Amino acid sequence: MPTTRLDLDRIHAARRVIDPMFLNTPMYRCDALGRRLGCAVSVKVETANPVRSFKARGTELVASLLASAGRTAVVCASAGNLGQALAWSGQRRGLHVTVVASRQAPAAKLDRIRALGAELELVDGDFDMARERAVDISRERGIRLLEDSLDIETCEGAATIGLELVDKEVPFDTVLIALGGGAMATGMGYVLKTLAPQVEVICVQPSGAPAMTRSWHSRRVITTESTDTIADGVAGRRPIPEVLDDLLAVADDAVLVRESSIMAGMRLLLEQTGLVVEPSAALGVAAVLEDRDRFAGRHVVSVICGSNVDLDSYRQWVHQ
Amino acid sequence: MPTTRLDLDRIHAARRVIDPMFLNTPMYRCDALGRRLGCAVSVKVETANPVRSFKARGTELVASLLASAGRTAVVCASAGNLGQALAWSGQRRGLHVTVVASRQAPAAKLDRIRALGAELELVDGDFDMARERAVDISRERGIRLLEDSLDIETCEGAATIGLELVDKEVPFDTVLIALGGGAMATGMGYVLKTLAPQVEVICVQPSGAPAMTRSWHSRRVITTESTDTIADGVAGRRPIPEVLDDLLAVADDAVLVRESSIMAGMRLLLEQTGLVVEPSAALGVAAVLEDRDRFAGRHVVSVICGSNVDLDSYRQWVHQ
Repeated sequence: MPTTRLDLDRIHAARRVIDPMFLNTPMYRCDALGRRLGCAVSVKVETANPVRSFKARGTELVASLLASAGRTAVVCASAGNLGQALAWSGQRRGLHVTVVASRQAPAAKLDRIRALGAELELVDGDFDMARERAVDISRERGIRLLEDSLDIETCEGAATIGLELVDKEVPFDTVLIALGGGAMATGMGYVLKTLAPQVEVICVQPSGAPAMTRSWHSRRVITTESTDTIADGVAGRRPIPEVLDDLLAVADDAVLVRESSIMAGMRLLLEQTGLVVEPSAALGVAAVLEDRDRFAGRHVVSVICGSNVDLDSYRQWVHQ
Repeated sequence: MPTTRLDLDRIHAARRVIDPMFLNTPMYRCDALGRRLGCAVSVKVETANPVRSFKARGTELVASLLASAGRTAVVCASAGNLGQALAWSGQRRGLHVTVVASRQAPAAKLDRIRALGAELELVDGDFDMARERAVDISRERGIRLLEDSLDIETCEGAATIGLELVDKEVPFDTVLIALGGGAMATGMGYVLKTLAPQVEVICVQPSGAPAMTRSWHSRRVITTESTDTIADGVAGRRPIPEVLDDLLAVADDAVLVRESSIMAGMRLLLEQTGLVVEPSAALGVAAVLEDRDRFAGRHVVSVICGSNVDLDSYRQWVHQ
């Protein structure tokens, strides 16, 4: 059993707090997609819910804890999906939710954060600039700052996906996990390495936002000056040391993929499964496309982690 | 409790036979869609599975019964979705599956029926011509003919969706059900009228394929000479008397919608929920679009019954 900040009992307990709407999401084998990729492929679909991503698993925990403690407000920085999820979970529990996001984030994500009743503050610059501003707001107002991947609830929420994978009777060889801040990879990775250690845990990041992958390979935090990828959901520059430590304990590999592969992955997912996905959710398929030999004949599970896209951009990407 | 061919105990028992992959499908409220429609809207998503429609709920029952009885083959006529589902369920139980379909059915549906290992026979003419040919094959080969909507298992399978709706704690006022042969409407309608009789059951059919709706209003079978709709999944001309009788016992209304409304519904579902749906799955939203006053302020549930589309056609429909 790997030693990380996570704990299996707490992850089991998390399932009792998260709205069932976000649990037991569809998972099934897509033979048509598998034929195109030369391996067996199952998808775990995290997009059929009101916030269209897996992030509510974590925000349900956070919002529930805050409401129980009598707290009334919370702030987070978000690339777009965490903010929607926190807005959804917070609104249902009477919390005032403030989300700080980059002005460059997809308009669809920003619109939905507002529509869900959150206060949205936009910053010039990227996600890591939004993180700095969220810290300031937290201090100014004396309210809880939710930090994605650092705060254990975000990892525990994602870890419940891992429980659902190992509950399946159908065995699989490899799970492909989009790597951004690391909540999903460390959360799911911990559960898999604890309950199904034979499963290979591979993290996938865009070449245009490689900080965490480089850090994993170097076993120390490596930051980058900028990011350049359509996969906005995973475009961070500054890995969090505690999260990297956890990732080192649970990931078997971390790979980088090209933008063209991400687009090809989105197109394949649309054509072969009928799913509209955001770029981050196509990273797993992109990884197989770039290294078919590695996955040939294996059974891989890819987590379809989000579907919040600007449709105009999406059409350009999939029709290329 | 309405008197139909269905039985609640059998429907409960069906849930134990159907592969869990097809059960407990996502259901959630889409506030963004609701704002556009002027009412609260929840979707029940039946597309996140290997056959991308609800039809496997019924074919799981049929294939399981046949396999238990030592039968080795089955034939059905299909507009496309039943054939895929029967191929999937049959293949897993060692059954030889023959599907008869119209040459005009969407290529995507036909390709997937073949890919799932079924023998596919195409006929010139429409779905009702395919039904005739399937009867012939059944007689020639002495094998079971599965008739959608007439055979009780197809209705019982669809009825399990109804059980999942009434299990929800969130109350709703109206359920909008795509009406073709009538399996889904009679199955779900029976469960709702039995366990939640206050819920209004409204069937929706395209104006270009109105046979069952006209029959329901006239309380006798009315056939049509032809059909003209993009909603291939519900385009029948010859209602089945036994199914009409059941529908008369459980439906509160049956309405017709225009093609332009179906396309607008598909577009709204893509934009506001991120779901790619086939035309039949947009009938519910189309019905709200055509009669906003009727649904204003109510909570309607729309079953997203399938997502098998030819993408080229889909793009034309949603971009108009």
